[in-house]
Amino acid sequence: MSDDPLKIGIAGLGTVGAATLGFLVNENARIAARAGRALRVDAIVARDRAKDRGVDTSGLRWFDDPVALAADPGIDLYVELMGGADGVAKASVEAALAAGKPVVTANKALLAHHGGALAELAERTPGASLHYEAAVAGGIPAVKALREGMAGNGITRVSGILNGTCNYILTEMEETGAAFDGVLLEAQKLGYAEADPTADVGGFDAAHKLAIMAAIAFGRQMAFDDVQIEGIENVAAEDIIAARDMGYRIRLLGVAERTDEGVSQRLRPCMTPIDSPLGKITGVTNAVMLEGDAIGATILTGPGAGGGPTASAVLADIIDVARGNCPPTFGIATNDLVPVTSSGAPLRDEGAFYLRVTLKDQPGTLAEVATALGRSGVSIHRMRQHDHKNDIAPVTIVTHRCDLADITAAKERIETLSVCTAPPVSMRIVES
Amino acid sequence: MSDDPLKIGIAGLGTVGAATLGFLVNENARIAARAGRALRVDAIVARDRAKDRGVDTSGLRWFDDPVALAADPGIDLYVELMGGADGVAKASVEAALAAGKPVVTANKALLAHHGGALAELAERTPGASLHYEAAVAGGIPAVKALREGMAGNGITRVSGILNGTCNYILTEMEETGAAFDGVLLEAQKLGYAEADPTADVGGFDAAHKLAIMAAIAFGRQMAFDDVQIEGIENVAAEDIIAARDMGYRIRLLGVAERTDEGVSQRLRPCMTPIDSPLGKITGVTNAVMLEGDAIGATILTGPGAGGGPTASAVLADIIDVARGNCPPTFGIATNDLVPVTSSGAPLRDEGAFYLRVTLKDQPGTLAEVATALGRSGVSIHRMRQHDHKNDIAPVTIVTHRCDLADITAAKERIETLSVCTAPPVSMRIVES
Repeated sequence: MSDDPLKIGIAGLGTVGAATLGFLVNENARIAARAGRALRVDAIVARDRAKDRGVDTSGLRWFDDPVALAADPGIDLYVELMGGADGVAKASVEAALAAGKPVVTANKALLAHHGGALAELAERTPGASLHYEAAVAGGIPAVKALREGMAGNGITRVSGILNGTCNYILTEMEETGAAFDGVLLEAQKLGYAEADPTADVGGFDAAHKLAIMAAIAFGRQMAFDDVQIEGIENVAAEDIIAARDMGYRIRLLGVAERTDEGVSQRLRPCMTPIDSPLGKITGVTNAVMLEGDAIGATILTGPGAGGGPTASAVLADIIDVARGNCPPTFGIATNDLVPVTSSGAPLRDEGAFYLRVTLKDQPGTLAEVATALGRSGVSIHRMRQHDHKNDIAPVTIVTHRCDLADITAAKERIETLSVCTAPPVSMRIVES
Repeated sequence: MSDDPLKIGIAGLGTVGAATLGFLVNENARIAARAGRALRVDAIVARDRAKDRGVDTSGLRWFDDPVALAADPGIDLYVELMGGADGVAKASVEAALAAGKPVVTANKALLAHHGGALAELAERTPGASLHYEAAVAGGIPAVKALREGMAGNGITRVSGILNGTCNYILTEMEETGAAFDGVLLEAQKLGYAEADPTADVGGFDAAHKLAIMAAIAFGRQMAFDDVQIEGIENVAAEDIIAARDMGYRIRLLGVAERTDEGVSQRLRPCMTPIDSPLGKITGVTNAVMLEGDAIGATILTGPGAGGGPTASAVLADIIDVARGNCPPTFGIATNDLVPVTSSGAPLRDEGAFYLRVTLKDQPGTLAEVATALGRSGVSIHRMRQHDHKNDIAPVTIVTHRCDLADITAAKERIETLSVCTAPPVSMRIVES
């Protein structure tokens, strides 16, 4: 083992940073054996120098400016754990890469918004490389599995449950029958949701992860802006009950897949069978399903957030850097990444759909809905009118395979019917 | 990308070899982009030159002797896909390593029996390295997840369903109620079990995989001989029914864990809750559960065998070699591997146990069994006497936490009772 230690600078000592620092200090010999060389945390940036993080930080150099730390000649490896797509996180990562250093980051927003430019900077700067295992699904080694473990496959589809907060809320809604707002409030009290929950429940955090995986999987330029994003804020308790009645669960699914028309990236609530690989996932657990032409499918599940699990991924990247395992950022040379060109037209989105319509309880209403569906090219697989206590009848429908455009047209037609008392609700059904 | 191709020699064109060759030939450009350099299959060894493998082999050099292929100066990377712990598989891998070449193999028996010596040979020979992702759980990137993706963790436990044939048989037994022999015969007809099923149903194949994972996980020398192995041949239909009645499933589990006394490696049929991560796994699917101090637990599931999935793992190793990602065979330098020393005494094996005793249906028999259990230090959590049509009463018991040695003592005591009509059966209960 080389006696020359790899000198590490860490910016950000929040939950993940403190956990990473703790392992690097307290388990140094064990981690160094895995890394094949000595490792030493040399310098840190944190807002509060006085805070007790359970680690002796007295021997470390403190910086106020992450950019200065990143560029400091005494640092061999820069670890960015502050977060944020722009600002000092971006500036400091750029500074480290420009200085020819490897960078390890957990910053999914930075990767999703600026991954392309950062990958090019890393590639053209000798010594620089960009590692971000912690940015996707926390402790689950999803990036490594996709970029290296399945590198021989032509990937056809990447899907997953990529946000633990949302999966916790949907699980609680199913188990308690409560509405979204109440469950969110409870999740915030328990620390499973942030005070501003938009990034989680709006789907943006999961969409960042999906865009990153899609870039690796399909060897194409990062295209976060192309992800169609719908959060879970509008998932209604009655749709969760209807799903369960039919053997489904509502899950916030990220799905990126290669079709004849191109690569689609969709992040939205879907219905999926309770016993499907992703339907089985409950609580804060994350899951990633990777499908390729050689392997078929493999599924990785585990903790998608938290100090320890995320530190596990950060440490794996640090050990990779120490061992010199620095593959291209997205698995192939940036010149070989397929350029993202959009025709503007939405890709087809074919499958079965769930539809809930709310109708006046009077003769002939169902016939009107059925006619509207037929005119839109949507055929009915199952239809059920539910018990109701007043003169408003909720009707749930599962369609045969059709395109989202047909469903949208059908909803518009149904909404204009005089017997329809509320806007119809639809959700894509994903069988696996 | 380097224009100098990595010249590959493949020995063994069975299911896995033919699939690997097919991808390397038919998807060459895509795989080369991931590998960062040109790849070319240059030479092969196979028993039958005339067989149609769906790939054009006309431009390849054919060897009769795998050792000669492995040592041939025209070959940069040797891929061993013949199998077998000894013989030409071992000799050819040794020849390639001794010649300073990277070796990729799917040979779990070779690794389990000779991995220690091969790792040392690889380490002391410049240019040599040993890659064996395909030897553990087929297409699932379990070796990479453990050796790299979780490298920062202190691993506490590795467990899994590591043999698809056994899991298929146990699943079928549960679903049909049929006995082992009949289901095995059916599995052989369907191609899920070999004509000589010993390696699979005897637990040896899974034990090889467990020993390999334990060496990586705990940074210790390979200790296949220390694995306690029990196959599924004696799993009775009535125990499968009893398990299900209690919310359990019988699964052939491999469990390696670090205890105060040392590292235990056990491969045997266990009862595990139907909704536990491993209890959920049905059919030929494999699953690996990795537990560490940073991550908690992560679970990888997927196809554990078959041409395409295994080729996926072989290709990943080939791409690693092309990229120069050649970590130590078992994750740390061989000198740092903890030596395996056995005191001879079996490690404690504490947990709840299932026990089935067969008794004459007469007054006082249960009291005698309860007394025998009590004298052996085993206390009863649940006990149930089942319906029976003759004067022989089957009784199933779930114990409180105790040691296997106590269970063994209790079984011996019970068997000497005059009311006991058949040897008692026991099985460890594993909660996750």
